[in-house]
Amino acid sequence: MQKEFYDPAKPDGQNSSIKEPISHNGIGKIGKRYLIPARQGRAVRLKKNQSIFIHNIRGNQVCDFFALIDGSESEFLSMEHTRTALGRVYVSKGDILVTNRRRPLIQIVEDTSPGIHDILIACCDHARYQQLGAVSYHDNCADNFRMSLLAINVPIKHIPSPFNIWMNIPVSENNGKYSWEAPVSSAGDSIKLKAYEDCIIVMSACPQDMTPVNGLGVLPSELEFELESF
Amino acid sequence: MQKEFYDPAKPDGQNSSIKEPISHNGIGKIGKRYLIPARQGRAVRLKKNQSIFIHNIRGNQVCDFFALIDGSESEFLSMEHTRTALGRVYVSKGDILVTNRRRPLIQIVEDTSPGIHDILIACCDHARYQQLGAVSYHDNCADNFRMSLLAINVPIKHIPSPFNIWMNIPVSENNGKYSWEAPVSSAGDSIKLKAYEDCIIVMSACPQDMTPVNGLGVLPSELEFELESF
Repeated sequence: MQKEFYDPAKPDGQNSSIKEPISHNGIGKIGKRYLIPARQGRAVRLKKNQSIFIHNIRGNQVCDFFALIDGSESEFLSMEHTRTALGRVYVSKGDILVTNRRRPLIQIVEDTSPGIHDILIACCDHARYQQLGAVSYHDNCADNFRMSLLAINVPIKHIPSPFNIWMNIPVSENNGKYSWEAPVSSAGDSIKLKAYEDCIIVMSACPQDMTPVNGLGVLPSELEFELESF
Repeated sequence: MQKEFYDPAKPDGQNSSIKEPISHNGIGKIGKRYLIPARQGRAVRLKKNQSIFIHNIRGNQVCDFFALIDGSESEFLSMEHTRTALGRVYVSKGDILVTNRRRPLIQIVEDTSPGIHDILIACCDHARYQQLGAVSYHDNCADNFRMSLLAINVPIKHIPSPFNIWMNIPVSENNGKYSWEAPVSSAGDSIKLKAYEDCIIVMSACPQDMTPVNGLGVLPSELEFELESF
């Protein structure tokens, strides 16, 4: 029997993430505010020692955040290696997140929110929404990641587990059960992340509207980001 | 400046895992007991509906366990997707572990141990031991995974986060801190895992001897496995 070949780079469907990169090569302008429309993703190149601000415009929007080493994309920000580095399953301001080769890549430099973020959960994808009951294509962070990188011609061979900014997944001690809770961030909250290496950042304004991840009874909304000088 | 190219398939050093596969193609004999020597890894092909027993001979030995879809190795057992499927950060007997495409792949059918296993922590690797203070090459589960697959000519593009059988990583509720504890399993404990798809299993007898993961003051030891009929 012929096995089905799985290509991690190929989206299961499409939205505008694939045709509206911030520039043809993902290089952005310092200080310019860029929009990540609701349910979409964008990629941007960040240089070593440069920082990026991500703004939670409505306050309830989760950002699935990925970072790949520029030019060596098999090395990327890794939540399982970050958990080992931190000795915790949560992150805090000041923490340094590491790659799958255990190299420092991203530091949480500033955070105006209460600091509740997730480093445990895979990004949503086509299969997840089908399992939740979607009957047709549903925007998803895996496809937003793929499309944002296809749009600037960066090849990938794996979809890393993301740093889920503002996602609220409290874990219970006794049985290890967790729950999907609404974000505790507020409109206008922002987080500042500094790069330790030249990297490609991908952010997805998570389109999850079948669990309360982006707020109970609230539609997925936009995010904004801007690059800071070195 | 020239970027360093990272090849996930290439070991950082070697041990006998690369030259002593159970057979040239990883196909095993039903009912035969196979040894995984201390600090080494082995790969074996498992057919859909077939089960594998893994035996903890000394009782204190952690097994880093990986499973890849046979013929489509970019799809593999994924702990971050399994956590979403289970709603827990721990596993229990009866649980079905899923792939990065959210398909059922491995079920925990039997478990004679108290059932303490880990699905949070990346496998150990060369960088980890260097950070812990190793001054020369140290056997590690990432290289055992790479070598076990090189030995049967299976290409990989990523090292998945493993199912760490008998690894004891309790998570604290208040701050999300966890600790590295000795296994609570006993000599002769075994776990039975059933495959939902044709897959390639890789097991590494974890060589960690710089934290108490394999028992306090105890040397890493061997494991054994056997295949059960359909």
